[in-house]
Amino acid sequence: MPASTVDIKFYLEKIKSLTDALLLRYLPSVDNEPKILHEAMKYSTLAGGKRLRPILAYSAFEYCGGNTDGDDLSIHYAMAALEMVHTYSLIHDDLPCMDDDDLRRGIPTCHKKFGTAAAVLAGDALHDVAFNLLASTGSTKVVVELAQALGTAGMIGGQMADVEAEGKDVTKADIINIHTRKTGALIKASVRIGAILAGASDSELEKLTRYSEKIGLAFQIIDDILDIEGDTETMGKPVGSDVGLGKATYPKAVGIEQAKADAQGLIDDAVVLVNEFDDNVLSELAKYIGQRNN
Amino acid sequence: MPASTVDIKFYLEKIKSLTDALLLRYLPSVDNEPKILHEAMKYSTLAGGKRLRPILAYSAFEYCGGNTDGDDLSIHYAMAALEMVHTYSLIHDDLPCMDDDDLRRGIPTCHKKFGTAAAVLAGDALHDVAFNLLASTGSTKVVVELAQALGTAGMIGGQMADVEAEGKDVTKADIINIHTRKTGALIKASVRIGAILAGASDSELEKLTRYSEKIGLAFQIIDDILDIEGDTETMGKPVGSDVGLGKATYPKAVGIEQAKADAQGLIDDAVVLVNEFDDNVLSELAKYIGQRNN
Repeated sequence: MPASTVDIKFYLEKIKSLTDALLLRYLPSVDNEPKILHEAMKYSTLAGGKRLRPILAYSAFEYCGGNTDGDDLSIHYAMAALEMVHTYSLIHDDLPCMDDDDLRRGIPTCHKKFGTAAAVLAGDALHDVAFNLLASTGSTKVVVELAQALGTAGMIGGQMADVEAEGKDVTKADIINIHTRKTGALIKASVRIGAILAGASDSELEKLTRYSEKIGLAFQIIDDILDIEGDTETMGKPVGSDVGLGKATYPKAVGIEQAKADAQGLIDDAVVLVNEFDDNVLSELAKYIGQRNN
Repeated sequence: MPASTVDIKFYLEKIKSLTDALLLRYLPSVDNEPKILHEAMKYSTLAGGKRLRPILAYSAFEYCGGNTDGDDLSIHYAMAALEMVHTYSLIHDDLPCMDDDDLRRGIPTCHKKFGTAAAVLAGDALHDVAFNLLASTGSTKVVVELAQALGTAGMIGGQMADVEAEGKDVTKADIINIHTRKTGALIKASVRIGAILAGASDSELEKLTRYSEKIGLAFQIIDDILDIEGDTETMGKPVGSDVGLGKATYPKAVGIEQAKADAQGLIDDAVVLVNEFDDNVLSELAKYIGQRNN
């Protein structure tokens, strides 16, 4: 196979910048009331982050032949919406009644900065802006896709199971179940929403669904590994916090070497699924997720 | 004018029963994981309540010629969705970091019964089920309608302003602004969503929008009056709690007699707006709101 012509680092930077511009455009203005809420929403959304979900949506949209020359705003709405719901989930997960985290991406969490009431409401409001944006695509199908990914069968169910599993012994099946819902559901929805907006065929959608399930699980396994072996400065949060909280993690269930091998196996499977073109962004993105260090 | 042939009490009971049946149908089963969340969602949603928002949506749908013989499920989806987002807002408003209420509708609030983490997540999950249901109508327009009513320009903005106004002197304009957003936005959206799903014309929609603004403000003014003059048992919560918390209320700004006169004026205006048929449910509903005692 020839060397890939995709410069993935440049691509990631480009779509990350586009996402940041879209977030600024679609977040409510901090000059309008309620200013404290609009500031809290902006603070947490623009605090950094890899913008993985918008990048996946955009790449899947492109892969399925979507129009990326800027005439079709639907993918822009979806990209901003996906990052906003991701931010909403982080704000609520960090609350004192949940994980009680003081730092996120190297800066104080939303409730440390703006108070708990404002943090709950800022999360709620991001949730609403996201649905408003997604509905603005004109497709009810993508609204249903997001609502199901976020609900008790998806992200919220995973978060509840995660809280309940703290300090308990968990099997590999338990942890795969938690990861698949808590992180995997939104990653899968990101890929599927991009594909649906591009008008993907059923078979394309089915293939990208399997791709997204593999990279979603690999992403979270690597997250668990980085919490053990990562660098506090690169990560922007203290390493070892999962162990400290008695969190259910994949390495805890199978050991760190097996965790690394399983993550690599998932990445390899994902690459095979999308390799019908010699080189493409989805395949490079899977490899990038396999090699990430923050 | 001849006596109304609409038996409003019978009508309210009928649509309330329909709403309860729809909520049971569309809430996730408590037999499925995460059981504690599904129980919390059911507990708070089925704890009682007047079902005013679903009733308004149904009545507006009927008024605009929507098909109510059960073949068109879109109004059913909308009715359940509106009650679920109303419940989500009550669960989050009652949280310790917000109004810190122990009782709601005569029973312990969601966080008192299930814990704060479960209450935050149960509210979040109801939010998602509601958007899933609304998108299932096939109309992105009603999804946008709800998202805007719930966001910082609507309900959440009103809740933030309400929290910030506690213990401060407020003018009549301030309190109208708070009420219009905190309670009024969702009441307006309920009427508009029913009308939109029935295929209302622009002029019909405009008329019902004005109707909904009047009854929404009247509803909340009467709520404030009942907190002063109401009966604890009939209300299912302690009266006088607004005064105790130093809440911004309409009677506080204009005096109780003026508050009563203004509420009646709004009801009269609302009745005039919808009286093109000799008697109809929307007109009776407005009068009912003017006379409610809980």
